[in-house]
Amino acid sequence: MTARLASPKSADMATAAIQTSSHVLELAHPLPLDGGQSLDGVRISYETYGQLNADKSNAVLICHALTGDQHVASPHPITGKPGWWIRMVGPGLPIDTDRFFVICANVLGSCMGSTGPASMAADGQPYGMRFPVITIRDMVRGHVALLDALGIATLHAVVGGSMGGMQALSLAANWPQRARAVLVIASTARHSAQNIAFHEVGRQAIMADPKWQGGDYYGAGKGPEAGLAVARMAAHITYLSEEGMHEKFGRRLQNRTAKTFGFDADFQIESYLRHQGLSFTDRFDANSYLYITRAMDYFDLAEEHGGRLADAFAGSDARFCLVSFDTDWLYPTSESRTIAHALNAAGAPVSFVELSAPFGHDSFLLDVPALDRVIAGFLGQ
Amino acid sequence: MTARLASPKSADMATAAIQTSSHVLELAHPLPLDGGQSLDGVRISYETYGQLNADKSNAVLICHALTGDQHVASPHPITGKPGWWIRMVGPGLPIDTDRFFVICANVLGSCMGSTGPASMAADGQPYGMRFPVITIRDMVRGHVALLDALGIATLHAVVGGSMGGMQALSLAANWPQRARAVLVIASTARHSAQNIAFHEVGRQAIMADPKWQGGDYYGAGKGPEAGLAVARMAAHITYLSEEGMHEKFGRRLQNRTAKTFGFDADFQIESYLRHQGLSFTDRFDANSYLYITRAMDYFDLAEEHGGRLADAFAGSDARFCLVSFDTDWLYPTSESRTIAHALNAAGAPVSFVELSAPFGHDSFLLDVPALDRVIAGFLGQ
Repeated sequence: MTARLASPKSADMATAAIQTSSHVLELAHPLPLDGGQSLDGVRISYETYGQLNADKSNAVLICHALTGDQHVASPHPITGKPGWWIRMVGPGLPIDTDRFFVICANVLGSCMGSTGPASMAADGQPYGMRFPVITIRDMVRGHVALLDALGIATLHAVVGGSMGGMQALSLAANWPQRARAVLVIASTARHSAQNIAFHEVGRQAIMADPKWQGGDYYGAGKGPEAGLAVARMAAHITYLSEEGMHEKFGRRLQNRTAKTFGFDADFQIESYLRHQGLSFTDRFDANSYLYITRAMDYFDLAEEHGGRLADAFAGSDARFCLVSFDTDWLYPTSESRTIAHALNAAGAPVSFVELSAPFGHDSFLLDVPALDRVIAGFLGQ
Repeated sequence: MTARLASPKSADMATAAIQTSSHVLELAHPLPLDGGQSLDGVRISYETYGQLNADKSNAVLICHALTGDQHVASPHPITGKPGWWIRMVGPGLPIDTDRFFVICANVLGSCMGSTGPASMAADGQPYGMRFPVITIRDMVRGHVALLDALGIATLHAVVGGSMGGMQALSLAANWPQRARAVLVIASTARHSAQNIAFHEVGRQAIMADPKWQGGDYYGAGKGPEAGLAVARMAAHITYLSEEGMHEKFGRRLQNRTAKTFGFDADFQIESYLRHQGLSFTDRFDANSYLYITRAMDYFDLAEEHGGRLADAFAGSDARFCLVSFDTDWLYPTSESRTIAHALNAAGAPVSFVELSAPFGHDSFLLDVPALDRVIAGFLGQ
């Protein structure tokens, strides 16, 4: 296992060589949704890395987070930035594309090619708020349809951090035969009141922006960028740890030696948050933000299974690995522990580790070598 | 001490009998400000309770929090709600108006009668964003001017929670002869990066509202109410503990038995936050919110005193009491501990207690009988 670990530098070199393949699947049948509706003409944009083996047993599905996308290890087409998990996915990396056929699909409701509120409805106009409210399970229905189309009966593993972990859990609970291993990082089996509260602030910020126009802003110049930026800023605070923020920014001033006694971004943390908010609006659709946060807030895996989380995993033969981070206050370790207890109660094989990392919730995306080792070890079994 | 403690019921009865006296002081001289400017014609609205004794030795100054006001134990003139600390201030209550002459002044920059951005400038137009950026020390300069006008050389005590605690610390540090006792509850000696981050989200939400109009919204119908409501919602999350929010709201639905698969406030926490945001706009001025949050973000008592917090208290003969709450994640116990260590280093007498209460930062305003006992005991010495 150790030989397979890569430093960030070798990860960059590996990325240069990685073969990416981009696809769009249009579903032949309407996709049934938890809300009771079904959705026609669903398109799923996805990328693959590596080769599917002859018996189709080496597929690893990576599920992305709220504002993530299918570009897990390929440059983002809008920002040009490297894929969001290049440190993890590539030849010789923990999710080894020399060995595994890696799939990453843009979730239903998002805005990077899969069907979402910005997509055209049957009348040739964007859905906007006519798009149905979807759930995490609906997103996973889309993933399962993709696996069907690819002829993959059972994944070697499903892997996800944050909202990606919710999808992995939902797949394990609702399609227990579709994955032999389930890796859930920095995630939760249900959204807490505080989680919902932060999302509601973001949604209200978007909806309060007059440019939102009830969601009908497509083609009308700029959308609710100011509201979306505020939503992103509020959320971004929850992705960082207090300690990490203190280490990184403290009370340091931004390109100045004294306070200005004005409302400019005097402090580095202000400048950083403003940048995070503004740059986000270049690559993300405000309505998608509404729909995906709603799906996350609705997520309660126990509730879907009669109120007892262990029952969600009753039909599973998969092995599980749960990872939390000690500085993650969005989905703290206690949430992973709850899942571990439920898996124990269900008799499922589970390993659970809390890793120490200073970056808060975002640790799953950042340089935490111990996470590399856990992932490589779990997938390599 | 025990006999003086009152249940909420007796607090209500006490309130019925409390004598309130409302005043406005207009300063005869310009108020110098930390930003280098000075402010002419400053008005300070304040309330008093109880009687000042002959040697003017029984005055207790209560400093209010960010969105608080002088109506500490009298009904709010806009909302009609009881004063914000009626459980603490009144005859026979911990801050005993039979014994103490209690003063509470609306802070400079606020909107309840003291001079702030909504006040008229010399040209007869509201200041708006022409109002100078002020600091916590500037607010305290206003308080000191009020004490001068009242002929009070030395307070029996200065008391404050949250931003009120910052004012109490600033008074102790910069006017060390003006208070014999300093009681600081759920506060901090400086705003952290995370504290600044949350305030910046609120400011950006206000400034992103087109009705803000660069701060020139007075007399132009409704101001930036949507932005101010979002700011309040984001801040409100920080005032509650995660546990308290879970206890109070959990994932319970609001007046419905099933999710609506829409964007209504399905969850109680959503409904509660929306109400908090909207009702706040009835009583608070958005520009005041900008200025006061800025003052809090600028607050760094050590920085004002050469970088060493202990030096801030070098000239003080006061005795100090610090109170934190175990579920307060806005100004956690570690912040109070830092102050206690600095006071120890300065040789000041200090007692410090962390109280257990489920309400998070807001605990200082709520039913925490142990806080009543601490305050009564400290002031009664």
